[in-house]
Amino acid sequence: MNANPKFIAAAAHVDEAAVQPLPASRKVYVQGSRADLRVPMREISQSDTPASFGAEKNPPIWVYDCSGPYTDPAAKIDIRSGLAPLREKWIEERGDTDRLSGPSSRYGQERLADSKLAELRFNLKRDPRRAKAGANVSQMHYARKGIITPEMEFVSIRENLRRAEYLESLLATGPMGKRLHELMGRQHPGESFGASIPKEVTPEFVRSEVARGRAIIPNNVNHPESEPMAIGRNFLVKINANIGNSAIGSSIAEEVDKMTWAIRWGGDTVMDLSTGKHIHETREWIVRNSPVPIGTVPIYQALEKVDGKAEELTWEIFRDTLIEQAEQGVDYFTIHAGVRLPYIPMTANRMTGIVSRGGSIMAKWCLSHHKESFLYDHFEDICEIMKAYDVAFSLGDGLRPGSIYDANDEAQLSELKTLGELTTLAWKHDVQVMIEGPGHVPMQLIKENMELELEACHEAPFYTLGPLTTDIAPGYDHITSGIGAAQIGWYGTAMLCYVTPKEHLGLPDKDDVKDGIITYKIAAHAADLAKGHPGAQIRDNALSKARFEFRWDDQFNLGLDPDKAKLFHDETLPQEGAKLA
Amino acid sequence: MNANPKFIAAAAHVDEAAVQPLPASRKVYVQGSRADLRVPMREISQSDTPASFGAEKNPPIWVYDCSGPYTDPAAKIDIRSGLAPLREKWIEERGDTDRLSGPSSRYGQERLADSKLAELRFNLKRDPRRAKAGANVSQMHYARKGIITPEMEFVSIRENLRRAEYLESLLATGPMGKRLHELMGRQHPGESFGASIPKEVTPEFVRSEVARGRAIIPNNVNHPESEPMAIGRNFLVKINANIGNSAIGSSIAEEVDKMTWAIRWGGDTVMDLSTGKHIHETREWIVRNSPVPIGTVPIYQALEKVDGKAEELTWEIFRDTLIEQAEQGVDYFTIHAGVRLPYIPMTANRMTGIVSRGGSIMAKWCLSHHKESFLYDHFEDICEIMKAYDVAFSLGDGLRPGSIYDANDEAQLSELKTLGELTTLAWKHDVQVMIEGPGHVPMQLIKENMELELEACHEAPFYTLGPLTTDIAPGYDHITSGIGAAQIGWYGTAMLCYVTPKEHLGLPDKDDVKDGIITYKIAAHAADLAKGHPGAQIRDNALSKARFEFRWDDQFNLGLDPDKAKLFHDETLPQEGAKLA
Repeated sequence: MNANPKFIAAAAHVDEAAVQPLPASRKVYVQGSRADLRVPMREISQSDTPASFGAEKNPPIWVYDCSGPYTDPAAKIDIRSGLAPLREKWIEERGDTDRLSGPSSRYGQERLADSKLAELRFNLKRDPRRAKAGANVSQMHYARKGIITPEMEFVSIRENLRRAEYLESLLATGPMGKRLHELMGRQHPGESFGASIPKEVTPEFVRSEVARGRAIIPNNVNHPESEPMAIGRNFLVKINANIGNSAIGSSIAEEVDKMTWAIRWGGDTVMDLSTGKHIHETREWIVRNSPVPIGTVPIYQALEKVDGKAEELTWEIFRDTLIEQAEQGVDYFTIHAGVRLPYIPMTANRMTGIVSRGGSIMAKWCLSHHKESFLYDHFEDICEIMKAYDVAFSLGDGLRPGSIYDANDEAQLSELKTLGELTTLAWKHDVQVMIEGPGHVPMQLIKENMELELEACHEAPFYTLGPLTTDIAPGYDHITSGIGAAQIGWYGTAMLCYVTPKEHLGLPDKDDVKDGIITYKIAAHAADLAKGHPGAQIRDNALSKARFEFRWDDQFNLGLDPDKAKLFHDETLPQEGAKLA
Repeated sequence: MNANPKFIAAAAHVDEAAVQPLPASRKVYVQGSRADLRVPMREISQSDTPASFGAEKNPPIWVYDCSGPYTDPAAKIDIRSGLAPLREKWIEERGDTDRLSGPSSRYGQERLADSKLAELRFNLKRDPRRAKAGANVSQMHYARKGIITPEMEFVSIRENLRRAEYLESLLATGPMGKRLHELMGRQHPGESFGASIPKEVTPEFVRSEVARGRAIIPNNVNHPESEPMAIGRNFLVKINANIGNSAIGSSIAEEVDKMTWAIRWGGDTVMDLSTGKHIHETREWIVRNSPVPIGTVPIYQALEKVDGKAEELTWEIFRDTLIEQAEQGVDYFTIHAGVRLPYIPMTANRMTGIVSRGGSIMAKWCLSHHKESFLYDHFEDICEIMKAYDVAFSLGDGLRPGSIYDANDEAQLSELKTLGELTTLAWKHDVQVMIEGPGHVPMQLIKENMELELEACHEAPFYTLGPLTTDIAPGYDHITSGIGAAQIGWYGTAMLCYVTPKEHLGLPDKDDVKDGIITYKIAAHAADLAKGHPGAQIRDNALSKARFEFRWDDQFNLGLDPDKAKLFHDETLPQEGAKLA
């Protein structure tokens, strides 16, 4: 594991496993109101129903696709060039940003000037972009001005998944069309706990949700490669995958591979939590090649800059780090500004103290200076940076419980209230916000977390890690937490941060990333079904019909992981005949 | 997979992987009121807290242990002899059974007389036992007469897990004892949805729960090797593992290995769903070597006896099968007596029809004869057999939904009401009953299943398969269903039937069995925590403390799967130093 071959930019290549189309699938693009607004979906084709079951046609279904151009055979993928900047023109047209003449952060300039890094640096041929003086380039700002951006329209098309067209297509399959339409379209009424999901998502609905802060569209003007997506309670539940190297493990190439692997299986956003050397360069490679929003925890890098000594952190170093990362195109920042000095003593009687890395860095800083957190004190200064690039806040839960014992305690809930205050402050600046949540929570206390968040944070999207519903299964925390994630997603959490089997034990490899992703896709989809998200049941219905009719390949292909389903089946019944029987 | 070596009784041997004690664990026995009443638990020892965290002693904790003598190095395991008949004397003392002069079923006699089977037959040296004429040997019968059996006392000790002694032991650890006592003993209040779990389980409490039918202790008088356990809403949530060969896969040896593997990881009961040849002999090997109750679905074997032609089934063949299996020692029978003729047309508009194998066998029989089910018509005759051996009913949900689409439909709920009627009938005979439940159910409909079951079936224990909360993840149905299992366990289900990753795709192998078991142990424990089961949080607290203090080995050993936790950790940080750091 320490035997990473040296990473050389000139030799970088895409993970071949990430660029194969999924079985029986093809990438389709749904055209929006302008020629350059093309929304990707995955079309899964199906075979006909066998004669003994009625010989029906089974039209293809469309599913949400996070994999970007990677699974499109028509796309030329060269990770040395990065993805095409599909939003470039939209950003340009708004006329509220300027091209800088290079990075404006001190650190960004230093790294660019360091010739030792030339060999591994991504060859970015464009300069960063920033809002013109006095301008605010956040999607929330536009939304509040009543502007429907191409990003909002993109999201609306994406969320609808061509469900209306699909159901329509069933009617046209012949004499059985009406029955098929009923069969595929039927869905159990949901229990949405106050969410109000429209039957059809319009661009105006997206705008209004963003305007009132109930959804965010994280897309930095310096990440024009990203395909817009929304995180909000009235949209499909999303999932995030964490990747990132450490001082002892993995390389730039491995992290890029993990990103492309994560999005292949359905990661809606990716957080780069790298802490080793070359954080800056690793991030550049990831952002340039990522079609999904990228989040980071800037304090991790700031800490590296002071050699790991939390007490030496300063606002200036942190500020420079924010600008550095904003100009690379990071779409959301986890900022632990709710870890306030008076809350730290509340953790003294905990079982597991402060387990959030960002939280413990800030707690250490506050205690050693006996001062209020500079993140809290400079919160509006941070907002000024965020709105100049459209970086969204992910307000970190630095005091989240690290054990069942510590769940829903005073420290956690005090911080949550502060996150609510900060939300109001960020919204004053039209900066997009989501709120991070726990952690380790037994099932009977999960609902309280969601209710308190909605109330304290004025319905800003909740973004939770798990929660893990028990502490007794190291090695299986994707499952202890998947149970909690499904529930909190049902109650209203907008995005679920995955947990892999390696949680608490080590860094995830590609297999762990996939296990985490699939588990969380299950949780998110189970939540969509339970909320009664319109059309969520279509895929379940299609797969169940395939199962009932012994269309084995269709059953595999409609599932979240066709490869594993087929493998498992073939272990017992390898003959082709058995799949058609 | 078809290359099974021929099974020879004389050469049969235990799976070596099943007889190793778990790391840092030893088998202890808690003495009851009589010398031969010794209740097994697993004691997990812990290292001291490192000096930097306070150098405390961490007393051992006791956990529930389903593995029987296998993990006891003092036990001599020879699967050719079977386990010691620890309940033999208790049964004998009651004086209400007779030894028969051999099997009384026709089929049992035929198999015994078949010399071709000699080579693979388990060499059972004792004759079956049956209630004396007019006697009723069910635990429910004793309970209703006010008798506390040794089985009930065993259960009470087992359920308490020495929690009081453990908490007491903390006080004695020295100056920090009081704090440690508070830390380990603290637990969040539960939400029990009407369960009433006592702080300490007394033998009288067990008796009263069995008497009113709210719990069962499945232990056939012909399975004296079994260690008594209870299934009921006011006890710890239990899990069942399904094993069983088919015409095309696995051998007797593999199935015995799966059983010993399943109980090692925490299977509370095991169902033998074998359908291939040698069903009778396979079952004998499993029962003789199982310390946990064994369940079966007798209709599967009855069908084999009529060469798979459902319409040729008769009450006489089925009756003979019940007696055959009861005399082997099967502890509970799944009987699909609720699949009544009038309900079958209700499945016509389903997505996936009747997916229960037992349900579809009976539906076929009913339709081909256009007659009411012989299981329903002969239900009281079945009760007479059950009470003569103390076999418990697991009233099968033959009309359970096989897809999200079919969840909670008329067919399913009609059958449930009939299961309630049959429960009343069985209770008239003092026969123990649990009720099987679905299946495939989206989260928002799970609670309704539990509530309807409690009402219709008068609080008889609910025993559910999953439920699977979405259909879209073949290959991961342990997870789609673990999410549902945790929830329904929380709401009041007494036993969760595991689902393995191979569900819908093929027969589980040993790895799948373990994945299914661990997932369901997580679900059951998460449910215990959420219900507020007294003391359930001790293990979470102990593990979290070990985690916080970087006692890596203790963290692994306190978990459900120490082997995997250690392996995952060592992949990233293999050095011994990293485990103590």
